[in-house]
Amino acid sequence: MTFHGTAQALGAFGVCAAIAVCTLCITKSPAQSTKEGRLQAGSGASPIYGVTIPPGYRDWHLISVKQLIGGAGLKQLRAQLGNDIAIKAFREGKLPFPDGSIIAALHWKEVSSHADNKVLAEGFPGAGLQSSFAGDAVNVQFMVKDSKKYAASGGWGFADFTNGKPGDLALHAKCFPCHEPGKDRDYVFTHYAPTP
Amino acid sequence: MTFHGTAQALGAFGVCAAIAVCTLCITKSPAQSTKEGRLQAGSGASPIYGVTIPPGYRDWHLISVKQLIGGAGLKQLRAQLGNDIAIKAFREGKLPFPDGSIIAALHWKEVSSHADNKVLAEGFPGAGLQSSFAGDAVNVQFMVKDSKKYAASGGWGFADFTNGKPGDLALHAKCFPCHEPGKDRDYVFTHYAPTP
Repeated sequence: MTFHGTAQALGAFGVCAAIAVCTLCITKSPAQSTKEGRLQAGSGASPIYGVTIPPGYRDWHLISVKQLIGGAGLKQLRAQLGNDIAIKAFREGKLPFPDGSIIAALHWKEVSSHADNKVLAEGFPGAGLQSSFAGDAVNVQFMVKDSKKYAASGGWGFADFTNGKPGDLALHAKCFPCHEPGKDRDYVFTHYAPTP
Repeated sequence: MTFHGTAQALGAFGVCAAIAVCTLCITKSPAQSTKEGRLQAGSGASPIYGVTIPPGYRDWHLISVKQLIGGAGLKQLRAQLGNDIAIKAFREGKLPFPDGSIIAALHWKEVSSHADNKVLAEGFPGAGLQSSFAGDAVNVQFMVKDSKKYAASGGWGFADFTNGKPGDLALHAKCFPCHEPGKDRDYVFTHYAPTP
């Protein structure tokens, strides 16, 4: 899964980084999206990998939760979801992930509510509690396991979508190199969060 | 859904607060657990409400994600999951929630990894990126909608479990009063996170 900040969030950078993680993909300028749009595998598919948005991914199982902060006011809350094949592998600690595994990383702007914090302050005087939650959607990323189709990238196909549209080629060219430090965990940095 | 810090996390306080939020439940001392254990509805059920841990809740649908920070080093990442009835109501904006709705709030200690942040620093020089993720489980809380059974508490039964064991009566006595500010949203503070 990956870090991602929109150009808006990170100034001149669009950031896609595997997380806990990490794949780090940087687009140098939003203009590249137009320039390289013709290189995309299809109107709704990621360049290089041809990954489209898997139907129903919002209903998948929870793997874990993350926060990403950075300069220029970047502050995101994130959730990683897995399809049935991926979640089974996470729970059994099975590596490498079987073909058909898909991991989704959902990223939101992190926001807070004065009303929420007021309730906390009244309920817990002096505890200094502050809550924040998922606000506007930023982007969603996918890792799709197909050991034959994606043999050149550790068996994984990568994709990054903002408002339903895939990012450009420069963004996706960075995905696998940045996941390489996670080779001993089959290029997946996210750990399964224990069940409370 | 609710805020919760263990006594360990919040010094003398056990905190259960509905979130985004909030229900605020405070136990004054861990000793109360023993004193009031006999008042619990059953070995595995929450006092007052008699709510037990719903089987399979870890596989429910993602509602949203939150962070809670506070004094004494409290730092949690949190996820809210809903069963089929609850998630349908969230997506349709249906209020009040129909009977049978159950909302789960999973809370973890928020931790970070030097290795992860090193990858980020190398991938995004100067961006100041820092990632954190769900570490050890803290507790899980439930809100169960049954408008007849729980008529005295807005139609909701509450429960808070740590290591599979329900919190004490004092903790649960605070749940509904703290959710009351959310009456116009059927006592639920959590908002459905948009699908990226």
